[in-house]
Amino acid sequence: MIRNNDAGQIDFGTQYDQYKTMVESSLLSFLGQTDEPETAILYEAARYSLMAGGKRIRPVLMLATATMLGLPSDVVMPYCCAIEMIHTYSLIHDDLPAMDNDDLRRGKPTCHIAYGEATAILAGDFLLNRAYEIILDSVRVENPHSIDAARLISQAAGGNGMIGGQIMDMVFENQAITRDMLQRMHQKKTGSLIVACVMLPLLFCQTEQQLQQAFRQYGKAIGLAFQIRDDILDVTASANQLGKTPEKDERDGKTTFVSLLGREEAEHQLAATNTHARQALQVIHQEYDCTFLMEMTDFLLRRSS
Amino acid sequence: MIRNNDAGQIDFGTQYDQYKTMVESSLLSFLGQTDEPETAILYEAARYSLMAGGKRIRPVLMLATATMLGLPSDVVMPYCCAIEMIHTYSLIHDDLPAMDNDDLRRGKPTCHIAYGEATAILAGDFLLNRAYEIILDSVRVENPHSIDAARLISQAAGGNGMIGGQIMDMVFENQAITRDMLQRMHQKKTGSLIVACVMLPLLFCQTEQQLQQAFRQYGKAIGLAFQIRDDILDVTASANQLGKTPEKDERDGKTTFVSLLGREEAEHQLAATNTHARQALQVIHQEYDCTFLMEMTDFLLRRSS
Repeated sequence: MIRNNDAGQIDFGTQYDQYKTMVESSLLSFLGQTDEPETAILYEAARYSLMAGGKRIRPVLMLATATMLGLPSDVVMPYCCAIEMIHTYSLIHDDLPAMDNDDLRRGKPTCHIAYGEATAILAGDFLLNRAYEIILDSVRVENPHSIDAARLISQAAGGNGMIGGQIMDMVFENQAITRDMLQRMHQKKTGSLIVACVMLPLLFCQTEQQLQQAFRQYGKAIGLAFQIRDDILDVTASANQLGKTPEKDERDGKTTFVSLLGREEAEHQLAATNTHARQALQVIHQEYDCTFLMEMTDFLLRRSS
Repeated sequence: MIRNNDAGQIDFGTQYDQYKTMVESSLLSFLGQTDEPETAILYEAARYSLMAGGKRIRPVLMLATATMLGLPSDVVMPYCCAIEMIHTYSLIHDDLPAMDNDDLRRGKPTCHIAYGEATAILAGDFLLNRAYEIILDSVRVENPHSIDAARLISQAAGGNGMIGGQIMDMVFENQAITRDMLQRMHQKKTGSLIVACVMLPLLFCQTEQQLQQAFRQYGKAIGLAFQIRDDILDVTASANQLGKTPEKDERDGKTTFVSLLGREEAEHQLAATNTHARQALQVIHQEYDCTFLMEMTDFLLRRSS
């Protein structure tokens, strides 16, 4: 367990990359292998999107939290990979012509551009289903926490979680919405998986109510900060920086924190959310060394892609 | 447990309808409720497809097998509903313009015709995820069989199961394929969920290897019989009878048992598969009363829609 007094000397970037490398090598083995030559294209399309880069924020967050709590990384690794697969499937389906109609993701052609729409739909379905195969393989009778962890993910990804947020996003298109509505939508669409990443390792430990609340607050705050930063980048960054089409939100009739509040107020809100995250970390810091999570917050706010 | 000597007197049709009614009322409660007014459309679209009729062959098969083995129906009901949701999500996605492009399903407009493509994609995703929420809610530490059951479904629905079959179906379009390839494709696409329905209740009982093999053989045979009958109906039945567009397979460049073998040979193969199913039931019959499964086989072969 990394307590305050034995914090490692390794710098944030190196540590982040270490976590990321661990996740990426596990992702490939967890994806599994085709058992028939004719289904190879399904695995290839899924692998294409899964390994297309990306910051791996969710699994890194989960690994970092687990490490902080003193959990071995292999306890949470299956859940890290499952959540990254769920995140990836949601991107593949979101990018489809009938949804956000995006040709570019992480600087590469989106899955349906590279493999066709039908294969992209099935590759998304496959990644979602594969996530649950992995989760169920990790459920252990002798460890009831593994069942709680599995349920946490299934709820975060579902109709009252991520998918609920996706439908709200659609329903809100070309509609005048309030700040509260925008925030509730993002809390589900992006927030619920991010909160799950922070909360999941806690299930394997005995932690007090107050500490759990602080973790939840931290997760919610960085989920929101992530989204506000995204909205700001959408109007300030180039396609090259973003790896996806900029100014898309306006084109799609989507309300963003910038279009709703203006650029300056969105920056204020981002700063306020940052403060909120730091307050939560102060509580956690009484028990655990939060250096990494502190720097992770800065990283999410600073990021230019 | 329904042994040979205490078979019920109730006729097949009545029993089938009883199982079907039990499933349909459970489906609605397992689907759950939205927690935000703005996500209501997601639940509505999922409910629309889930409750659009259909024969409920999979959950009825599972319930009948469970009853035969002496299991209370509530032990398998969550899995019955989860499998029906997985089946329904696969139909919603299969019907999409980028996939089979079908406007009609069970005599009603398909999900994307009724709710638009984007909502249909999300409703499918939601049903798949919801299936796993239900499955995970049913996992019990004190009952390891519940974990085996969950894994059985996740594998049957995955890349080496149903989704694998869907991609093979796509890859085989407009291609000359052999009888073996056609059969392997259907074994995955339709067969794997049907086999899972027959095998799942066995996980909760102590059954001999030989009996398990007979159940698997039965499941495989009726899965195949179901598909051959489907292919024959595709060229002989009207849209009205089918509740979907007939002669679609030819239009889509899909090989069927009829196009590959001719109508007469397809009928022969159907009869042979029927014999195969009955041989398996003879083995099972030494232990359990198979009256319902016997009549179920006839029902699947006779059906005109």
